[in-house]
Amino acid sequence: MKTILAYGDSLTYGADPGGGPRHAYEDRWPTALEKGLDGQARVIAEGLGGRATAYDDWTAAADRNGARILPTLLDSHKPLDLVIIMLGTNDLKPFVAGSAAYAARGARRLVEITRGHFAATGETAPQILLVSPPAVVETTNENMLGNFGGLDHLFRESREFARHYRRHAEETGVAFFDAATVAKADPRDGVHLDPANTRAIGVGLVPLVKQILGL
Amino acid sequence: MKTILAYGDSLTYGADPGGGPRHAYEDRWPTALEKGLDGQARVIAEGLGGRATAYDDWTAAADRNGARILPTLLDSHKPLDLVIIMLGTNDLKPFVAGSAAYAARGARRLVEITRGHFAATGETAPQILLVSPPAVVETTNENMLGNFGGLDHLFRESREFARHYRRHAEETGVAFFDAATVAKADPRDGVHLDPANTRAIGVGLVPLVKQILGL
Amino acid sequence: MKTILAYGDSLTYGADPGGGPRHAYEDRWPTALEKGLDGQARVIAEGLGGRATAYDDWTAAADRNGARILPTLLDSHKPLDLVIIMLGTNDLKPFVAGSAAYAARGARRLVEITRGHFAATGETAPQILLVSPPAVVETTNENMLGNFGGLDHLFRESREFARHYRRHAEETGVAFFDAATVAKADPRDGVHLDPANTRAIGVGLVPLVKQILGL
Amino acid sequence: MKTILAYGDSLTYGADPGGGPRHAYEDRWPTALEKGLDGQARVIAEGLGGRATAYDDWTAAADRNGARILPTLLDSHKPLDLVIIMLGTNDLKPFVAGSAAYAARGARRLVEITRGHFAATGETAPQILLVSPPAVVETTNENMLGNFGGLDHLFRESREFARHYRRHAEETGVAFFDAATVAKADPRDGVHLDPANTRAIGVGLVPLVKQILGL
Amino acid sequence: MKTILAYGDSLTYGADPGGGPRHAYEDRWPTALEKGLDGQARVIAEGLGGRATAYDDWTAAADRNGARILPTLLDSHKPLDLVIIMLGTNDLKPFVAGSAAYAARGARRLVEITRGHFAATGETAPQILLVSPPAVVETTNENMLGNFGGLDHLFRESREFARHYRRHAEETGVAFFDAATVAKADPRDGVHLDPANTRAIGVGLVPLVKQILGL
Amino acid sequence: MKTILAYGDSLTYGADPGGGPRHAYEDRWPTALEKGLDGQARVIAEGLGGRATAYDDWTAAADRNGARILPTLLDSHKPLDLVIIMLGTNDLKPFVAGSAAYAARGARRLVEITRGHFAATGETAPQILLVSPPAVVETTNENMLGNFGGLDHLFRESREFARHYRRHAEETGVAFFDAATVAKADPRDGVHLDPANTRAIGVGLVPLVKQILGL
Repeated sequence: MKTILAYGDSLTYGADPGGGPRHAYEDRWPTALEKGLDGQARVIAEGLGGRATAYDDWTAAADRNGARILPTLLDSHKPLDLVIIMLGTNDLKPFVAGSAAYAARGARRLVEITRGHFAATGETAPQILLVSPPAVVETTNENMLGNFGGLDHLFRESREFARHYRRHAEETGVAFFDAATVAKADPRDGVHLDPANTRAIGVGLVPLVKQILGL
Repeated sequence: MKTILAYGDSLTYGADPGGGPRHAYEDRWPTALEKGLDGQARVIAEGLGGRATAYDDWTAAADRNGARILPTLLDSHKPLDLVIIMLGTNDLKPFVAGSAAYAARGARRLVEITRGHFAATGETAPQILLVSPPAVVETTNENMLGNFGGLDHLFRESREFARHYRRHAEETGVAFFDAATVAKADPRDGVHLDPANTRAIGVGLVPLVKQILGL
Repeated sequence: MKTILAYGDSLTYGADPGGGPRHAYEDRWPTALEKGLDGQARVIAEGLGGRATAYDDWTAAADRNGARILPTLLDSHKPLDLVIIMLGTNDLKPFVAGSAAYAARGARRLVEITRGHFAATGETAPQILLVSPPAVVETTNENMLGNFGGLDHLFRESREFARHYRRHAEETGVAFFDAATVAKADPRDGVHLDPANTRAIGVGLVPLVKQILGL
Repeated sequence: MKTILAYGDSLTYGADPGGGPRHAYEDRWPTALEKGLDGQARVIAEGLGGRATAYDDWTAAADRNGARILPTLLDSHKPLDLVIIMLGTNDLKPFVAGSAAYAARGARRLVEITRGHFAATGETAPQILLVSPPAVVETTNENMLGNFGGLDHLFRESREFARHYRRHAEETGVAFFDAATVAKADPRDGVHLDPANTRAIGVGLVPLVKQILGL
Repeated sequence: MKTILAYGDSLTYGADPGGGPRHAYEDRWPTALEKGLDGQARVIAEGLGGRATAYDDWTAAADRNGARILPTLLDSHKPLDLVIIMLGTNDLKPFVAGSAAYAARGARRLVEITRGHFAATGETAPQILLVSPPAVVETTNENMLGNFGGLDHLFRESREFARHYRRHAEETGVAFFDAATVAKADPRDGVHLDPANTRAIGVGLVPLVKQILGL
Repeated sequence: MKTILAYGDSLTYGADPGGGPRHAYEDRWPTALEKGLDGQARVIAEGLGGRATAYDDWTAAADRNGARILPTLLDSHKPLDLVIIMLGTNDLKPFVAGSAAYAARGARRLVEITRGHFAATGETAPQILLVSPPAVVETTNENMLGNFGGLDHLFRESREFARHYRRHAEETGVAFFDAATVAKADPRDGVHLDPANTRAIGVGLVPLVKQILGL
């Protein structure tokens, strides 16, 4: 039995683009991935709304800096066979980091933290899979546009995700998946995913995860 | 379907008193509790080795101060029906806090954080169940005795857990369970639990959790 | 006798737009408000130059993140009948947060902190009054323009304060006052207030505060 | 008109040893001091329950480390003519610092912070008056004894306050006052003061403060 | 024998603009300065890649906020005769601070910290020399341009360094040197210096340092 | 040419047990070690008075937690061939950690940090040499005894240093040296070293360091 940590933000949490309750357990992508792995792995979901890769955001009670919290989760859930990191959308908020390049650099820091964490004590490090975020879509949701610096900014930067994440994945030698190839956001807020697109990420990850874990 | 957060330390993680690998998934108490609830609840296990209630310990890469990390976990796993807090053993280390009274005060702080967290945004707070740690036993494990200030200190203080935790539970109006009534440590290190005693906590909690959640 | 906490920045402190000494005690708006309440309330002034709502700024020895310091002040001055929050101008500095929308979101976080703080321990929460900052005016003060990202940025964003603050006040159910209706900045630096405009805020708040407190 | 900052803990806050509401405004020592200065000074009260000199205590929502918060208060209330520091009792809790010598060392750090704070920017530093805490008395309050490490510990250490504080005051060249010469705790909890003893500190400080400020 | 602390970033560290190993010890500017002082001073090099003046950047394991680390280095290397501060280039990254004006304000904070640090304990403060960063040059290095917000931003802001640094140096009464008068970056990445330009800073500082230290 | 980082406290700094100025450069042990290595290595001295291994002490302006600062120094001085860690004496202060076992555990954390730091980015880690502190001696210095919990405590714990450090060195596979075999404290304060004993540490380390570095 393999153990997988899914480290993400509201897209991993399963936030409803309509502002309603969290998506059903079955619709969240870690669940869909676990189902697709046919009982050969457990997927631990750690998705925090608003989480950024390695930047601070103190507008919530939870610590949204993914770099500060990750070591705690690695130790709480070890031994791990695979860590899947899908973060970066919140980094696009101008007050957080503001660009896909910074998001990708922050995501790379999470790769480094994971590796250094286990090397420090001589424990075996898990495999790592870096996922660039799904595509945003046009929206008229004023609140969301305010948060993300306007539609032009959001569009221009989100289209750069895959290019930057792929490069960092290659340079660090970890696996890569572009979630925009399987999922796109809901026009109600332009950023969050409906249940079908949320599940699609889990389903889309199955072949690559099987290959990584030799399942 | 109910959702329960199990917030704990190495006893929730499932650390082996012999220094071997983590207890099997089936032997950890959150799993045993979930099994006992017959499919009516999911139990999310967040057990970090060395975690204290509300005191710092920087001798590990993970943040061991349970008060600093809790808000992040509450938001990652909400909506929650019940939060079970079983922490305090590590507080007995003299450099951490050093007494059962302080452990209980720290655990009360976690109750306060949980309530304030959801009240801040007008969300419904989960029920809370405060669990005082299981009984320590005599050991000749020098390393463990060094960590915990010697056997006399460890014995004297751990016997005070239930009294202090019960009082704080009553004063704050949360549920209480004394894990020492169902589980005791393994003499190999005096503090950690063998698989049977680990499972016993989950099994022991079933009736009370059913009552709290109306199952 | 009621107790009111005035939580603010340099405008609450009483900074002189000409760079001179702090405005006289009588000219600061918390004093003017207290005077207008005819001995029925004490107003505790906590105005820190450079304070932002919930964002970091480490260019001063004082901690300017209003979210980190607020719990300490709530406990130092409780029981409180009313907390007046007038912050946000410093958030407009591009390196702090950079927009009225973020300032308003940060101010909402202070509302959440205040409510969660007292709910955590079962204490009665004070009323809350959210004040959107006074209007900035044209200036040729190069230093100030450098700090605030230029006149265009400062103007465009500051004109959005009231709209965003009012919305958050309504959504969270707290009282709202637009300070720009009674006070505008001094052209010497474009942001700070002369004594008359400073007093005007206190005088302007009197009717609403009386209504909130039932005086 | 002079301005005085009274920086303290629950004894400055005016906590009731019987667990009831805060002492009346008129009974708190900063008020008594202000009254004794006959309108020649304003005394700003910043007393936080549980505040220690320069040590952490995360069992409350407020930041209790007096060294971390002091710069913010110095800037919020400057220009100051005098800072009165009366802290140290909470340092006696074994998990905080545990001895009068450490309390005094922490109080000296607050003297250093105050001086460095204003020297950093070339502003004039206020005078400083270091006050060693009032005498504790015998009590049977189990909760309080648990907090403070038992009666023997509390007695032995609190009797050392004046000696250590006086030495640090002399070495740093600040004024010194021993509050135990005018006030002693209430036997209901052994540590906190009744209204009469609280007022006595303010009254007792009047002559020395007048002398320091040349009133 | 005098002691000088060289507090800087990758330009002080001696990073290779071609991405290769660190410049040789002899080529780093603190070494060149020490050599030029003819055995009359030791220069302690503390150059950290990515260090900003007083802003956070959590994308590395090292703490890059120069304001948080400086007190530790001042105490580790005291008594000091001179502190040379050459920081600011990394502040131009949009997610760090984003402008020469903010870089200069952050550098001023380091001047304040140095002065307050020694005044706090009554120790003699060192002289301070504020150095505005060398000139950036055109580059096609995409990675670097991504980090620094593009060539236009990098050019416009870096040309403002000297003006802002000189003003803060004058206002605080510390010495000033414009490194752009002696060194410019390597076109391979537009920001870092080749060995010759690195040495040139040390050589260029010799006359002013001699004058400051009376050598 | 090899590069060695000497990471320590006041014993590495060269504090005078008589309270006078810092020992001469030539008398500090990193200098003596460098001299003994005959020009084949540079030894970078980073000794901070009061530094503990991995525990907080906020009674000074400098950050005394050796675990928080180490990554910054590793990056400032890399590439490194050897890191020598001689810390632990300050951990014996009861409010810091209070025992040789905790000091050794903290020192082990520094070993882990060093290894994880370079593994995170795939850089080559330096060799590590763990040094248990020199012997304390009897003293009548009241201030020092107050700081260190009295002579009995200081003696009992310091005698346990070598045993604990050797065990952790063996378990982590790093080199070990017991400084008490070559140096003992000065009776004027019982903890600090006179120039001869300070130099003796550097001289004593030469053979082992040569062996480690293959010189």
